[in-house]
Amino acid sequence: MKVRNPRTGIYDYEISLLSFETLQIKADVMRQAQKNWQVIGIEQRIKTIQRWKKALERHLEEITEALTIDTGRKIETESEVNLVMASIDQFCDFANTYFKPEAQTILHNNTYHIEEFSEPFELVGIIGSWQFPLQNVMMQVIPALLAGSAVIVKPSEKTPRFIKVIEKTISQILHFNNLVDFVEGGKETGEMLCAITDSVCYVGSEVNARKIYEISAKHFIPATLLFAGKGAAIVTETADIEHASSAILWAGVFNAGQSADAIERVYVHRNIHSQFLSRLVGKSNLLTLAYPNINHGEIGPIISEKQATLINEQLADAVKKGAVIVAGAAKCLVQKGGYYCRPTILTNLNHQMKIMKEKTYGPILPVKSFLNEAQALDLVNDSASPFTCSVFAGKDSETMKIAHKLKSKTVTINDVYLENRFYGNQKSSNTSLEIKAENIGTNSFKKFLKNKDLIFKK
Amino acid sequence: MKVRNPRTGIYDYEISLLSFETLQIKADVMRQAQKNWQVIGIEQRIKTIQRWKKALERHLEEITEALTIDTGRKIETESEVNLVMASIDQFCDFANTYFKPEAQTILHNNTYHIEEFSEPFELVGIIGSWQFPLQNVMMQVIPALLAGSAVIVKPSEKTPRFIKVIEKTISQILHFNNLVDFVEGGKETGEMLCAITDSVCYVGSEVNARKIYEISAKHFIPATLLFAGKGAAIVTETADIEHASSAILWAGVFNAGQSADAIERVYVHRNIHSQFLSRLVGKSNLLTLAYPNINHGEIGPIISEKQATLINEQLADAVKKGAVIVAGAAKCLVQKGGYYCRPTILTNLNHQMKIMKEKTYGPILPVKSFLNEAQALDLVNDSASPFTCSVFAGKDSETMKIAHKLKSKTVTINDVYLENRFYGNQKSSNTSLEIKAENIGTNSFKKFLKNKDLIFKK
Repeated sequence: MKVRNPRTGIYDYEISLLSFETLQIKADVMRQAQKNWQVIGIEQRIKTIQRWKKALERHLEEITEALTIDTGRKIETESEVNLVMASIDQFCDFANTYFKPEAQTILHNNTYHIEEFSEPFELVGIIGSWQFPLQNVMMQVIPALLAGSAVIVKPSEKTPRFIKVIEKTISQILHFNNLVDFVEGGKETGEMLCAITDSVCYVGSEVNARKIYEISAKHFIPATLLFAGKGAAIVTETADIEHASSAILWAGVFNAGQSADAIERVYVHRNIHSQFLSRLVGKSNLLTLAYPNINHGEIGPIISEKQATLINEQLADAVKKGAVIVAGAAKCLVQKGGYYCRPTILTNLNHQMKIMKEKTYGPILPVKSFLNEAQALDLVNDSASPFTCSVFAGKDSETMKIAHKLKSKTVTINDVYLENRFYGNQKSSNTSLEIKAENIGTNSFKKFLKNKDLIFKK
Repeated sequence: MKVRNPRTGIYDYEISLLSFETLQIKADVMRQAQKNWQVIGIEQRIKTIQRWKKALERHLEEITEALTIDTGRKIETESEVNLVMASIDQFCDFANTYFKPEAQTILHNNTYHIEEFSEPFELVGIIGSWQFPLQNVMMQVIPALLAGSAVIVKPSEKTPRFIKVIEKTISQILHFNNLVDFVEGGKETGEMLCAITDSVCYVGSEVNARKIYEISAKHFIPATLLFAGKGAAIVTETADIEHASSAILWAGVFNAGQSADAIERVYVHRNIHSQFLSRLVGKSNLLTLAYPNINHGEIGPIISEKQATLINEQLADAVKKGAVIVAGAAKCLVQKGGYYCRPTILTNLNHQMKIMKEKTYGPILPVKSFLNEAQALDLVNDSASPFTCSVFAGKDSETMKIAHKLKSKTVTINDVYLENRFYGNQKSSNTSLEIKAENIGTNSFKKFLKNKDLIFKK
């Protein structure tokens, strides 16, 4: 299977596909290795993960280089790699408290004494996506290993170049023999993982999450799916326009919009709409493409060719239905085979347009005006469960009223939600690990564990 | 759709099937009613549930009568109804603490303040099974309502007679208008519930759990599935044979074996195998069928005709492969159209026999001897994740060593696990609500809730 280079468009890398039989044999061997990994206990597991961290550090340059070719962008890659390295310590610190004591007494009376233990799934499958290829898998790999599982990992077939370097670091860790395996492969390999593992994790798009859920159900294994919605921001009449326009622009264009947490639609009160729009446009025009020099400019290439086509289609659909482009362009530029999308701002919008409801993964900000709070809420909630929302308003009572009515997993008040910022702010703090309920803190381990109750009758 | 009477074999009841359109309209109206139900808060919800409890009490005789016809057994029905009524108070007490405070601070530092709220799924679908038709749905209905969801409930099409009485009690509760609905229907109606609800719960057999999981995945909604495995008991050389044989017999034949928690296979050390077997046979021969008088005898009819056929097939398969029947019969008796199965004990067994690996739902106890602990563990773990296991041994070190190696959700030490016993022992104690991780205590609510984080930047 040939892989495209996002900056050149050339299919310059080839991945080798594993047969189902090979994967089955792998799984059997890994289940054997897992037994010992579980038995050595949490302290030894943490020590081993720390050894892996050191091995990763020794190859950090090589990892960053490979990931940079995979994604075509550099600054974001460096930030991604730093984030992953910092998160390893955070997960280890948290595991150190989480996995002690071993058992919990959940009932103790005159008749019964019940103790609950947690046991890891033996073999966990982790399927990644191309937006943040290393982070999306490592945020599952580290807690799964700490929990005591063996892990077989398939990063996206669009960004496979870093796999060989990771495998090199794995080969340096004694306990990791047959315990951790990063494999190359596409959709079919992902499907095979659902057939040979006890539980599967995926971080990425809703489209793929749906497919993986169906395949997991067919194999009757649990699936943990983290997928992106159409992130939205509401800006009310009382908001700080200067601050809101900066924050929203950043959340819209970071990593060229290729993020689960991106803001992809903005609803602004009509009394401040034009003022907000002009600030947003002014600021967006200052941003430049990271082309031809990868070291300069803020906006890297669109990683996936399929996604570039989708961005063009959504823009054409919007324009056809009356949208006006006030910054950027109606189409991704093709520069020496790479797709680049300027920060693009649209207005004169309605919800018949795909760009208002379907995930774009591009640096596109449609800015629609609203009449009143109720209308803004209807518009945001019109799209099924956006992953993340922001509310910008001058008064606390106003923000809270709106926040509570939003059907969203997270609502950020007067700011944007990009996990990177949180990580960045808390490298020294453990409590902060709690912030992403699905993936960090207690829940980062829980999904890899089954409860087992021992019941004693007196 | 005609429904069979388990004591007469006559199809004497007819259920009416709802069209998909009717269910869709119902769902829309219920989502509207749910908004108010969520807003009134936990205290009002508890008050309303208590009012429902009173209404159920007023119709307790009618409910018990309908359920007795549905299942063909009386003592178990009375115990089931009592259990359900007691659990209502337990769930309410627990909800009273669980749902306060409304929000939890999960991060507070110089930069961020994050509060987490829980929000219920709007409309939950609850699908029941025939083993304990009322309990299997009410153990989901009560916590779902307390959490703030609207619930649409479809009990098994094999035991639908109690639905009309429950609907009568629902109609007496003001807030329940369009909020709680028990509907009649079969497999197709169950599938439709997955299409119109936000989350689905099922308690019953693995076969159906697998189907419901696949349909839920197709509709991309979460599924909570509680299904039975092939419960097993290990009896070592040092066990108290008198006690072990009594406990295992009870767990094997209660409700004619039609229980998720039933023991369906016994592994006994070869040095005590014949001694254990003779005690078990002696005790089982004292049990009588609850026929012709429903008020006398311990063993009621096999509720489902399909299950009676399956029991006969498993017995025939075992005998063909060399099993010897030492108590009971090789076939369910047919008495005036009802299927009755005597407590049946088999020996001379191997794992090629279906009866050692597939769920039976009948009062059948195959008793196989083992050589040593390792062999016993291999045999028990040979069947995928049995829901419940028991270990009988004279020494604590011995039981614990075995218990930890069993791949089972619960291991009961020197006793059997039937939830009824626990309920019975704890009517006055709240802590005890924690004992069934999936269904009681904190987790009984969690499955109906989504987290929502509000993030404040300072």
